[in-house]
Parts: sequence; structure tokens; C-alpha cells
Amino acid sequence: MVENRYVGWPGLLSAYREWLPVDNHTPQLSLHEGNTPLVYATKLSEMLENDVYLKLEGANPTGSFKDRGMVLAVAKAKEAGKDTVICASTGNTSASAAAFAARADMQAVILIPHGYVALGKLAQAVQYGARIVAIRGNFDEALAIVREIADGLGMAVVNSVNPYRLQGQQTAAFEICDALGTAPDALFIPVGNAGNISAYWMGFEAYAKAGKVLKTPNMFGFEAEGAAAIVRNQPVEHPETFATAIRIGKPASWDKAVHAAEASGGAIDFVTDDEIAQAYRLIAREGLFAEPASAASVAGLIKRHQHGLLGRGQTLVCVLTGNGLKDPDSAIRLAGDVTEVVDSDQHAVIKLLERRV
Amino acid sequence: MVENRYVGWPGLLSAYREWLPVDNHTPQLSLHEGNTPLVYATKLSEMLENDVYLKLEGANPTGSFKDRGMVLAVAKAKEAGKDTVICASTGNTSASAAAFAARADMQAVILIPHGYVALGKLAQAVQYGARIVAIRGNFDEALAIVREIADGLGMAVVNSVNPYRLQGQQTAAFEICDALGTAPDALFIPVGNAGNISAYWMGFEAYAKAGKVLKTPNMFGFEAEGAAAIVRNQPVEHPETFATAIRIGKPASWDKAVHAAEASGGAIDFVTDDEIAQAYRLIAREGLFAEPASAASVAGLIKRHQHGLLGRGQTLVCVLTGNGLKDPDSAIRLAGDVTEVVDSDQHAVIKLLERRV
Repeated sequence: MVENRYVGWPGLLSAYREWLPVDNHTPQLSLHEGNTPLVYATKLSEMLENDVYLKLEGANPTGSFKDRGMVLAVAKAKEAGKDTVICASTGNTSASAAAFAARADMQAVILIPHGYVALGKLAQAVQYGARIVAIRGNFDEALAIVREIADGLGMAVVNSVNPYRLQGQQTAAFEICDALGTAPDALFIPVGNAGNISAYWMGFEAYAKAGKVLKTPNMFGFEAEGAAAIVRNQPVEHPETFATAIRIGKPASWDKAVHAAEASGGAIDFVTDDEIAQAYRLIAREGLFAEPASAASVAGLIKRHQHGLLGRGQTLVCVLTGNGLKDPDSAIRLAGDVTEVVDSDQHAVIKLLERRV
Repeated sequence: MVENRYVGWPGLLSAYREWLPVDNHTPQLSLHEGNTPLVYATKLSEMLENDVYLKLEGANPTGSFKDRGMVLAVAKAKEAGKDTVICASTGNTSASAAAFAARADMQAVILIPHGYVALGKLAQAVQYGARIVAIRGNFDEALAIVREIADGLGMAVVNSVNPYRLQGQQTAAFEICDALGTAPDALFIPVGNAGNISAYWMGFEAYAKAGKVLKTPNMFGFEAEGAAAIVRNQPVEHPETFATAIRIGKPASWDKAVHAAEASGGAIDFVTDDEIAQAYRLIAREGLFAEPASAASVAGLIKRHQHGLLGRGQTLVCVLTGNGLKDPDSAIRLAGDVTEVVDSDQHAVIKLLERRV
């Protein structure tokens, strides 16, 4: 049973129905995805002399932007009569696929490379009831097998090769325009598999073409230095960064991302792990907890400021792609053990606290 | 600097301004807390022959319902000229206090019992920049010290003794009524420190008194069996349950909770860890991931159904108090290692998947 009754925000397939390939035959699937906060970053705005907003995609039901595309991909699979979705994923994609499959009364199958993924990373997929298959091979082989076997088994592939994913992800651009009443002057976004920057650009272009907004933003995408395939113009065999969600050496949407940057008057650049870590802390000073990869957008914004490329008084949006609770270990690792230990005695505690840190 | 610019949902202090002790002197603090989804539970509704909605409090900015009270408590502390908030907490309260303190440009001090709390549980508080002080004593001693020293140090206590906490938490009841256009017939909610059931009841009563709704719901609160102080009518010295957020043996709002249950025609009961674990899985089948303590509400709903106490055709709301990402380990522990390992070969994978599980 996929029927739903909605209260308040109806989810993306209803809210942006006319912009998506959805009709009366499409199941009204939703976990109330989308409608994520656009938070004014008070400290960053002051520091950079621009109005900086943070788009909190970690507020989505499974904690990442993936839900925007997955709701459409799973609904269309259901519409096509499939009862199973399949993907190769070690992270956010698996969580999202499993959640929407559960909601749609479908089975999710997740292929992972054996021995590479800590089970904790799959806690969501496991909890949502996905079937987890570990192959004795690497991630690329897992993805290849998914693509080879899905049709024969009557399963829908919901990896990024599924075109509905990017179509659904466009909605984040719609929401930003709807919230601001205009398109921002520039958008800053992490680049891993490079699909999301492409989807935002599709969304901004669609809104501009329809006259909903009068301009499109400059699109600035940021890879991690150790996984900067697009910037270096060659695939990275062994990508390295602590921002695991963008640790991708061969982006699937490479050409689309380059097009988005060029056509919009933006650019794709990289940021170092140190820059990402610093941005990660600055985001927390705004009161927000995002996963490390999310901080690449803010790191890129700051990098452009430091290089004198930013200008002033503009409306800028940084996309925070995932919830910090996806990766609490990074917070602890970067901070170190900050605990101060003291006797259980009020005078001892007072003495300690009077030494302001 | 606390000034904010809001886009879309303005946060609780603005949205429910006339219902809260907020005026022009109160800082407009917000992390876009509140406005959480009320999701129709398709499978539970069918199974129980009632319209069951789940209130997803894990969608709040720090991942729990605590944000509703904390935004008000921290704003009022700032309004009173304090620059530091302090609490004893090992979990959701510390995360929320630290986040709003960061947003308000204030310091947060968190007292914990030394050696008892895994640093990972404090990842959020650490990331938001809180000062973590571990005392060589137990939690009750930490709380006692907080209450003894705060005034002298000019700090605001934001533990549950702070009356603004419950006032802020009322807003969840307002949202439910606003979304449904009426009060539900009954509300099901986990009971740990017992503040939240009290706050919901305050909220429903306030709305009814003002004529915004024509009735109030029966309030059903559920403790964990191993921490069922209220049900057994005596404090539990060593509370035990895997639902850590309600592992509390001496609820601070004990009397208020009993009053809410009695005055509303409801009850306070307990559920076993097995019942909580089963409900935790049923929630996931709806496509939702809540922390284990949240599942006590659904476990209680099912218990009443099994005892023939539920009736049919009513509008019922279960509160899911926290995000499942707060405790991924429980998901893995309860499911066990479900991974199926296979060679990296499409025929092997096909053969495996054709054996439906």
C-alpha cells in the first residue's frame, strides 16, 4: 500500500508536481522529504560581507539530499510495476533507497564491496529492511554487477544512472528560489559524483525559462583536493579525503557538472581537507551540524573570499548536503578529547569554570 | 550577534509568539526548529484500524524534541543578560543546549559523570563548541552541582528545572492541532524525565481553552519497564533499558505527568524492551528511523491494541522524540549481521538474489 495522507507539507512529488514527470499513475510516495530550512548564517555573513544562507539538506528524512531524487526514482519504479530497487552504495544512497522502498512496500537490495564498509555506515539501510549483499570485489565491480543484472531480475536500478534522481534533485533549486523570491547570485556546492550541481543547474534553468525567476546563479562546485578528478581533468585512482561522501575519483555526472559551471559563469575548484575541517567548525559556530563533505561548499566560499574573488553585498547560498549525525566520529576526531576532568565538588568546578577557555 | 533573517518557516519563537513568554526584548533566536512532519503511518493504520500519525521530532535541528524548549530557554537567558548556559546531560539536552548557545553567541557548559559517557554521545555538543566538564561522581551529583553553582557564576541553568523548557515544548501540541485542524483523539508518548507529556498536555489545554480546538486528547505515556518509576510508584535506583533517552529512574516532572494522564482520561504504563524493539522495527517499515526511546510510544499503542483497549476509527498520534541517527548501534545490534557475502560475479549474485528472503 502506497497511499498516503499528508498533513502540512505534502512532499516533493505533490509540491512540485508540474515540474516533475509525475501524473495520476504515479504513486503518491512521500516521507515529507524536501522543504528543508534555508538558514541565514549570521557569522559567515558578517565575516564575508555578503548575505550567506545555508541550505540544510540534512533535514531530509534520511539525513541527506539523496531523498529528493530517490522519492521520484522509487515512485517511478513502483509505477513501472517493479517490486525491488537495487543499487551499489556504501552510504547516503543506500539509506535513502531503503527508506523509500520500505515506504512503497518494495524490497531494496544494496550491493557493497565486502570488507570495506563498516556495518555502522549501513545502520539505516539495515534498519529500513534492505537486503545487504557484499561482493568479494571493489565498488566499481559492485556497480557494474548492479547494472548488468537488474533488468533480468526485474529490478529498478536507483544508482545515479537513473535519470529520475537528478530530476528530483532539481527541487532544491526550486525551494531556494521560492524561499528567497529570486535566484541567489551564486550557489556553492560540494562535488563528489557531480550529480547534485548538475541537478541544481537544471532546476535554476527550468525556473528561469518559465519566468519564475529573472536570472540564474553562478554555480561554484568544490571537490576535495584528494578526489579532484574534474579540476585535474583526470580520474583519481585512489581518492582520499575525510569527507567520505565526496571521496569519488570518477564522477558519474562529470560532463554535466562542467557544463553547469561553465554555462552559469561559475567554476569547479577543489578545497583541501584542512579547509573542509575549518569550514566544518565554522558551520557549527552557526549552530548547525553537517557531515564533513557538506563543508566543502563553505570551504569553497571562503577560498574565493580569500582570493579576492567574492565581491560584496550578494545573496549567496551554500548547500549542506548531509546531516552531521551521519558521521559523529569526525567531530570527535577533529576536536580531540576536550573533556576537562574535575572532582565532584562544587568549589572544584567553580574554580575550573572561572578559568575561562 | 543574534539577529537572524528567516526564509520560510520562521522558527518557534516567531510562529507561536503569542503563546510563549516572548516580547520585543527577546532575541529572535532560531535554528528553524519545530514545523516537524506529521507522517501518516500507512501500515500501522491498517494494522490497528485507526488513523495513526507519527510526529517526527527527530527532524528538529539537533535531532530531538529538546530543541523546542531549548530555543526558548536560551533566548530567555540571553534576554536576561547571561553569556553562558549550563546543564548536566549525557545526551540530547547537551546537543540542543550547545547548538542554541552557539547560535546565540553564548558559551555552553555541559557537566557529565566521568567515565560513564562515551565521547561519541557528546559529538554534537563538542562540535557546537560546548565546554565539557566531567566530574568524578554520578549524574545526580553533576545535576546538583549545576544547580548550586549557576547563580554564583552568572550562568543560566537549562536543565529541565528551567520552566521555559516545558513552555517551549508545548509547541509540538500546537503543531499537531494546526496540522490536523483538530486535536487528535489520543496521544502516545515516551516517558523518561516526564517533562514532554506534561508539556504536550499544557499545549493541548491552552489551545482548547482559547477555542482553537474543541477537545483535548487522552494522553498515554509509556516508560520502559526497567525504568518505570511512575508506574511502580517508586524511584528506580538503577534504571535499565536499551532506550537510553528514557533510562531515567527519578523523573523530574513526575507529578505533572501523572496529572496529564489523569486529567486527560489517559494513563501511564510501561513497555518492555522487547516491545520497544518490535515497535522500532515497525516504525522502520513505515520508512522512518527513530531512536529506540521514540519507539516506546508506538509500543504502547500496540500494547493497548493487544489488550483490546484501543477502539477503531480514531485519529491517533505517536510522538517519535528523536532521530535514529542518534543511535545507529542499536539498529545494527538488533538486526545482527545481515550481510550476505558472495563472489564478485554476476551469476553468483543473480543466484543469491533469486533465493528471496
